[in-house]
Amino acid sequence: MVLDRSRDRRLFLSVALNSTGSAGRSWAWPGTEWGRFGNWEHYVRSAQLAHEGVFDIVFVSDHPALQRDNRSRPLHSFDPTVLFAAIAAAVPDIGFLLTASSSYNSPYNLARRLATLDHISGGRVIWNVVSSFNPDIAANFGDAPLPPRADRYRRADEFLDVVKQLWLSWDPPNDATPTDTLWDETTARRIDHHGEFFDVAGPLNVPIGPQGHPVIAQAGASQAGVDLAAKHADIVYASLLHKDAAFEYKAQLSNRARAHGRNPDEIRLMPGLVVILGETREQAYRKHEALHGHDNEDGLLADFFRRTAVLDITDNLDPDKPIDPDLFGYTEDQSAPVGFVRSFAEIAAAEPITPRQLVRRVDGGHRLVVGTPADVADSILQWWGEGAVDGFNIHIPVLPDGIAEFNREVIPLLQAAGAYPTGYDGSTIRERLGLPDPRHAPAADGSASGAA
Amino acid sequence: MVLDRSRDRRLFLSVALNSTGSAGRSWAWPGTEWGRFGNWEHYVRSAQLAHEGVFDIVFVSDHPALQRDNRSRPLHSFDPTVLFAAIAAAVPDIGFLLTASSSYNSPYNLARRLATLDHISGGRVIWNVVSSFNPDIAANFGDAPLPPRADRYRRADEFLDVVKQLWLSWDPPNDATPTDTLWDETTARRIDHHGEFFDVAGPLNVPIGPQGHPVIAQAGASQAGVDLAAKHADIVYASLLHKDAAFEYKAQLSNRARAHGRNPDEIRLMPGLVVILGETREQAYRKHEALHGHDNEDGLLADFFRRTAVLDITDNLDPDKPIDPDLFGYTEDQSAPVGFVRSFAEIAAAEPITPRQLVRRVDGGHRLVVGTPADVADSILQWWGEGAVDGFNIHIPVLPDGIAEFNREVIPLLQAAGAYPTGYDGSTIRERLGLPDPRHAPAADGSASGAA
Repeated sequence: MVLDRSRDRRLFLSVALNSTGSAGRSWAWPGTEWGRFGNWEHYVRSAQLAHEGVFDIVFVSDHPALQRDNRSRPLHSFDPTVLFAAIAAAVPDIGFLLTASSSYNSPYNLARRLATLDHISGGRVIWNVVSSFNPDIAANFGDAPLPPRADRYRRADEFLDVVKQLWLSWDPPNDATPTDTLWDETTARRIDHHGEFFDVAGPLNVPIGPQGHPVIAQAGASQAGVDLAAKHADIVYASLLHKDAAFEYKAQLSNRARAHGRNPDEIRLMPGLVVILGETREQAYRKHEALHGHDNEDGLLADFFRRTAVLDITDNLDPDKPIDPDLFGYTEDQSAPVGFVRSFAEIAAAEPITPRQLVRRVDGGHRLVVGTPADVADSILQWWGEGAVDGFNIHIPVLPDGIAEFNREVIPLLQAAGAYPTGYDGSTIRERLGLPDPRHAPAADGSASGAA
Repeated sequence: MVLDRSRDRRLFLSVALNSTGSAGRSWAWPGTEWGRFGNWEHYVRSAQLAHEGVFDIVFVSDHPALQRDNRSRPLHSFDPTVLFAAIAAAVPDIGFLLTASSSYNSPYNLARRLATLDHISGGRVIWNVVSSFNPDIAANFGDAPLPPRADRYRRADEFLDVVKQLWLSWDPPNDATPTDTLWDETTARRIDHHGEFFDVAGPLNVPIGPQGHPVIAQAGASQAGVDLAAKHADIVYASLLHKDAAFEYKAQLSNRARAHGRNPDEIRLMPGLVVILGETREQAYRKHEALHGHDNEDGLLADFFRRTAVLDITDNLDPDKPIDPDLFGYTEDQSAPVGFVRSFAEIAAAEPITPRQLVRRVDGGHRLVVGTPADVADSILQWWGEGAVDGFNIHIPVLPDGIAEFNREVIPLLQAAGAYPTGYDGSTIRERLGLPDPRHAPAADGSASGAA
């Protein structure tokens, strides 16, 4: 394991709190309460465990529609802003990365909700911007079909511009000197935005918060997604299954960030990582199979062939022969998200790999490590130490107990390596992530920001 | 004081938690922190005090735009759902009445946020439906002008229909019997709503909550507002300044409720009541004047004439001559809310009253009682005891300390009269308010509800 000590770096970790866990059948895992995805105490317990493990961030993805597969758990149920507001009152320090759609929200309302949560939590909010890609979602918000990706990303870009302006539109009143007014009217600035998708007058009725404004995260893997992330995101959650692909992605992201006038060192790349632990590798393999409802590896292979069936390539795949990466083609204008398919292609292109090997390397579209605590820690530290990534978003197969297991088995190894802290520092998640304060950012025209 | 003991009635009380208090200058009240409207601890402290006073409900009104008068406090800043979610994690028992606009939200998202909060709080949510009437709000949500009232109320009506269907669209999974699926697919029902304003497929991705669905509140005073309340509302917050007007309003509401097939006894009428307390009446009068930044009654009169100036009637008003109620005309199609103007007319029609007397009876459009604790308790108990109302929504001039004062001085008198409880009972706010469970309501076609 090589650690890059040339810079004052540290590993960042977030952990996903969705539903009953990242494993589809986690709801029925022995010893757990099945309906816990609808029990708020389950989430606050998970967040408390994440806090005990000194995780930087708890994360929830989102999907405002009921997912139909009733053999799996509903991955998305409670509204993330409402859920994290309640958790913020109960759990200190930890950051809250929540997902909300720029396609099915209005900028004023969402800016206000996130700003409120940022105040309540003391500056711990990160907004993961998604444009939503699912027709089931569209059908809950009108009779129009899902807009094409290009439209959704232009809307997301404009949405972000508006929201950032709103977040910096009203300075907090100054308590110092008695006057006749609570705030100076010049400190509340209309934004008067008139764009392709939005007309918003402003100012926001919530003052600037403890960290300036929430941190921005983005996970898009399409070209439009990478560009949106390079322009706006402080944290990037791409699906990266191979270290070579991570280096390549990071270089591409950095180039585009520079083209947008940003410093790429101020972007944290934190891909997803599913962790399945065992005392031995064999034990971890059996757990992996059991988590998917199988008794052996053949079940995992059958699942893989079922998933890839939609690509019409099953006839060209042999469980024990290396995969031709060209089989996993994708196009920029397909409506489904390209990240997961591209990741299959990347891993197969980077090294010869058979389906039997691949099923142990990918889970739910994310990178998977199945093994002992030392295997997991080594893998995390290697990617991070070589500079491929800044951290990981950990997916725990069965919540909440899997977090306690990770805390007990893996976190101490990361701490012993000097990569991970043993306690919380920094008063906001922005400070903890080492990100610049947007109140001090130069405006696009080169002048100082009005909210400095 | 006459108490009606013919029915098993009890007084219901909610208290408004908006900003720094109901007095415009409450932000600068001696001994308070000016910027506390933006400090979440201020709100949780206020809610804790309300809980100590055994209030049934804490309430926030809402207005998604910055109010421009910087001599006053911003009455609406933090997003109500996010604020109450955090308070729900910190304060038990008490109900949460929050305001959200049916004009500037989408039914699926709002239904989901409120359902999430209802789960988290254990069934303590009440949604106060408003249609929003202010052009400043409209300008934060597009370039279209504010729609006419009739359109906004038709939208509100359809919005409520959709939201109620969504709330009952997915039964909670049953933990009892091991099966291969987490829920039976027949228990998740699409709503497939296609109406004038909305197309929503459903089902909601949050299961039915602890009280079936949130309680509905409405405050509309226009004819369209009364009809919406009669059709949908469990709690009605109208501005009622005179007891005769309250009886008249209640009769009208009951008639319309019956026309909609509802039992009027299942609607709780809880108008607003501003309370200004003093050890003596004179002390309370001086406090009233000070709360408005004045040294004497003339200041209050000057404020009144400034407010009524927009009606172009100032020349016809004499501080010491009874007001001609016809001066306070209003029309159903005016765009400003009619409730407050109508209330002036009602009080002047019900009894001869001079402007000098009226300024001690109305504050911010709500009924005002200025006096000793006994004055306040007697006034509350008289209206309630005679059956004019079911309770009041108390507006406290200066938060949070005014709640502690009300708890100490007034609540014991209401309890001593046998009108108010000394502790919490009922596991949900619906139970506490004695309201029927919507899961057991007959459907419009006379059959049992699908969610029974």
